Amino acid sequence: MNQTPKEVAVVGSGLVGSLLAIFLTRAGHRVTVFDRRPDIRTVEFSGRSINLAMSNRGWKALREAGIESEIRKIAIPLYQRAMHVVDRDDYTQKYGKQDEAIWSISRSVLNRRMIDLAEAAGVQFRFEEKVWDVDLPGAKLFTGESEKGEWEAYEFDLIFGCDGAFSRVRHKMQRRSRFNYSQDFIDVGYKELTIPPNPDGTHKLDKHSFHIWPRGRFMFIAMPNLDGSFTCTLFLPFEGEVSFEKIKTRDDARQFFQTHFPNIMPDIENLAEDFFRNPTSALVTIKCYPWTYWDKVALVGDSAHAVVPFFGQGMNAGFEDITQLNALMGEHGDDWELIFKRYQELRKPNGDAIAELSYQNFIEMSSLTADPSFLLQKKIEKHFAAQYPDKWIPAYSRVTFSDRPYTEALDMGRKQEAIMKEVMAMPDIASRWDSREVMDRILELIEVQQLQNT
Amino acid sequence: MNQTPKEVAVVGSGLVGSLLAIFLTRAGHRVTVFDRRPDIRTVEFSGRSINLAMSNRGWKALREAGIESEIRKIAIPLYQRAMHVVDRDDYTQKYGKQDEAIWSISRSVLNRRMIDLAEAAGVQFRFEEKVWDVDLPGAKLFTGESEKGEWEAYEFDLIFGCDGAFSRVRHKMQRRSRFNYSQDFIDVGYKELTIPPNPDGTHKLDKHSFHIWPRGRFMFIAMPNLDGSFTCTLFLPFEGEVSFEKIKTRDDARQFFQTHFPNIMPDIENLAEDFFRNPTSALVTIKCYPWTYWDKVALVGDSAHAVVPFFGQGMNAGFEDITQLNALMGEHGDDWELIFKRYQELRKPNGDAIAELSYQNFIEMSSLTADPSFLLQKKIEKHFAAQYPDKWIPAYSRVTFSDRPYTEALDMGRKQEAIMKEVMAMPDIASRWDSREVMDRILELIEVQQLQNT
Repeated sequence: MNQTPKEVAVVGSGLVGSLLAIFLTRAGHRVTVFDRRPDIRTVEFSGRSINLAMSNRGWKALREAGIESEIRKIAIPLYQRAMHVVDRDDYTQKYGKQDEAIWSISRSVLNRRMIDLAEAAGVQFRFEEKVWDVDLPGAKLFTGESEKGEWEAYEFDLIFGCDGAFSRVRHKMQRRSRFNYSQDFIDVGYKELTIPPNPDGTHKLDKHSFHIWPRGRFMFIAMPNLDGSFTCTLFLPFEGEVSFEKIKTRDDARQFFQTHFPNIMPDIENLAEDFFRNPTSALVTIKCYPWTYWDKVALVGDSAHAVVPFFGQGMNAGFEDITQLNALMGEHGDDWELIFKRYQELRKPNGDAIAELSYQNFIEMSSLTADPSFLLQKKIEKHFAAQYPDKWIPAYSRVTFSDRPYTEALDMGRKQEAIMKEVMAMPDIASRWDSREVMDRILELIEVQQLQNT
Repeated sequence: MNQTPKEVAVVGSGLVGSLLAIFLTRAGHRVTVFDRRPDIRTVEFSGRSINLAMSNRGWKALREAGIESEIRKIAIPLYQRAMHVVDRDDYTQKYGKQDEAIWSISRSVLNRRMIDLAEAAGVQFRFEEKVWDVDLPGAKLFTGESEKGEWEAYEFDLIFGCDGAFSRVRHKMQRRSRFNYSQDFIDVGYKELTIPPNPDGTHKLDKHSFHIWPRGRFMFIAMPNLDGSFTCTLFLPFEGEVSFEKIKTRDDARQFFQTHFPNIMPDIENLAEDFFRNPTSALVTIKCYPWTYWDKVALVGDSAHAVVPFFGQGMNAGFEDITQLNALMGEHGDDWELIFKRYQELRKPNGDAIAELSYQNFIEMSSLTADPSFLLQKKIEKHFAAQYPDKWIPAYSRVTFSDRPYTEALDMGRKQEAIMKEVMAMPDIASRWDSREVMDRILELIEVQQLQNT
């Protein structure tokens, strides 16, 4: 269904803002993107980034926008996890079937490319223009140098708040009555670090693996870039025995890497330097509702549902918001009130689901990976899934390699957990975990669940 | 322990702000109270108030402030609920033992009296002075006519944010990293209504009862005032079959009261008029953490923990914050960092607990009161408590007539619920609910729980 062209403002020129601007422009609307920061193509990036893991939902949105092939050029497929563990050899875990991969992309490289593509599509960008206030019923934006200085007013037909976890647009909605909102920080922060390329420009570690050094309450990860470097992230508690607050000097940092990550030692000078150059950032889950205001304003991406990064789905979920919006625009034409109403009804449960899945992964990574009973359970699940791949699709695959709703992945995960609770209670499970009897018991429990659902 | 006199700002001249100002002044500090609204003693009140139910925790704080007897003069003791139900006669339920009562006080009458008492104690009030910004580390307040106009700066040693559920002080803390925050609205709103006195100035209903007309998803309550009137509150869903959105005309309002509240019919004209004069207000639970910033700023009362009003504990919980602060001031003297740290550690779990208890009461009132199994359970509990008053203290009594922590009431409530779940599963429970066997079973289950706890 065609739409009457509208004057549209997108607040935020990040990944979600640029992609949405492309979709809206393609649909015939006149789109202006506002960003309080300078053009990311003209400045060095923040040093607080985690590399992106583009997966199925992200690619689907890019495909629909007609820019998938452009983005594939700047992405590196990762087919497996490379686990760097203590007291045993490194090992790998394939992510999915033969060709299933997640794709490592540098946030700054991707964002620059997306803005180029949006400009080419006809989107107008207004960088370094700070939005201070929004008139929600009037769809007006107020911008200016400072919050207390002179403001300029812009009037639009529609405003999209793609301005991230600390969204100014949402902030305005939040001051209204009956707006539900929560922000929950975890006690673990993160810091960006870099492993530089070899002198010949090649990668120092396998470039088709997602590298993980799990250490219980903290962890180090590395994801490859096109230039041979790895963007790394240290996740570490803010306070406590091993924590950011305990690393005060360059010597402390060296000591920390030496003790806990001996095999990244060759790059330790670089890591120790990065450690004090780059900021320590916090991780937050943000939920809110409603996501829209009449037929005027909608929140998309992190502004509506910021999640912790432990499932690599933040950007993918934001891009899927856009796929959904685009489908509704096709269905409902000019009825923006209906488009926005259906958008929030369809996406809110999925936003909550991916928040929960992401938080669960944080808990698993930070505490359960040291629990022998948890590790045994995972071993049994894997053993069963290898024999009955259609009967046991792991939550990771549902989230990463499908476009079925996140709610389904969460729901199936809970059902699998219920089954495994019974399995783990079987006598002598540790010694006969791979027996026929245990496999049959799982089959039986799956059947019982299916009967209950019919 | 004596304290060095400090320059203290209290933001908000409501009940918690005025009482805290009295405590601080008595402790030797110089206290200025800021409020964006005019002096409540000079204006008519808002028409969005629910009468207060002062109970044990509230009285304790007033006693310690030396103003209990002054406040008793403006309070009416309510010894029982008067239940106005459909299809059967009205009946009453005593709140507690012989003299246990909750005390009905008009919010405006109380607030005016508290400001008088605070002024008499030496507190300085600055009404109609709007706080727009707070410098947390510098303990500075910025006030002015408008957010964008000229501001005046005040510097203090300590700032207390007693500025309610939509606190400006908290709002400033909230923009910092690692500040957890949530606001959750329920889908039921409320409206203040009035039943006027008889022509001779007497009350139209028993003045020592809390009057309730429970109707499942909605409810009407009435609490007496000194002047013979009742301040009433209609709790009603915003949307749905019977809801605020369905009552559009005076005729709709008349029809609504006639259908659902026939015995308040004589006052229906007045109610219908109030209905359109007074605003419909929303109900929110607010949680946050931390509650303090260094040794500079602390949130007290609703700004730290707003709750839905279904346990009548909002003000009581805020006053108990003050009792706690006062005790810590006595213990730790000038160590304000320690005072604030202990304050938030001790009070936060209790704030969460009373939020949960208040929300549970909302659920009970709005859905469970129509459930025969719930009513049977309550009947069994009551029967048992009458025989073994020391072994079964209802959560209501723990919250209302004791000063044990709210967390304890919540915890005991959960334990009682677990016991009753087993009791309700006994065969033929409906027919032998008051039998010796059932009573013995409860005794046994209590013993098992006690053994588990030792």
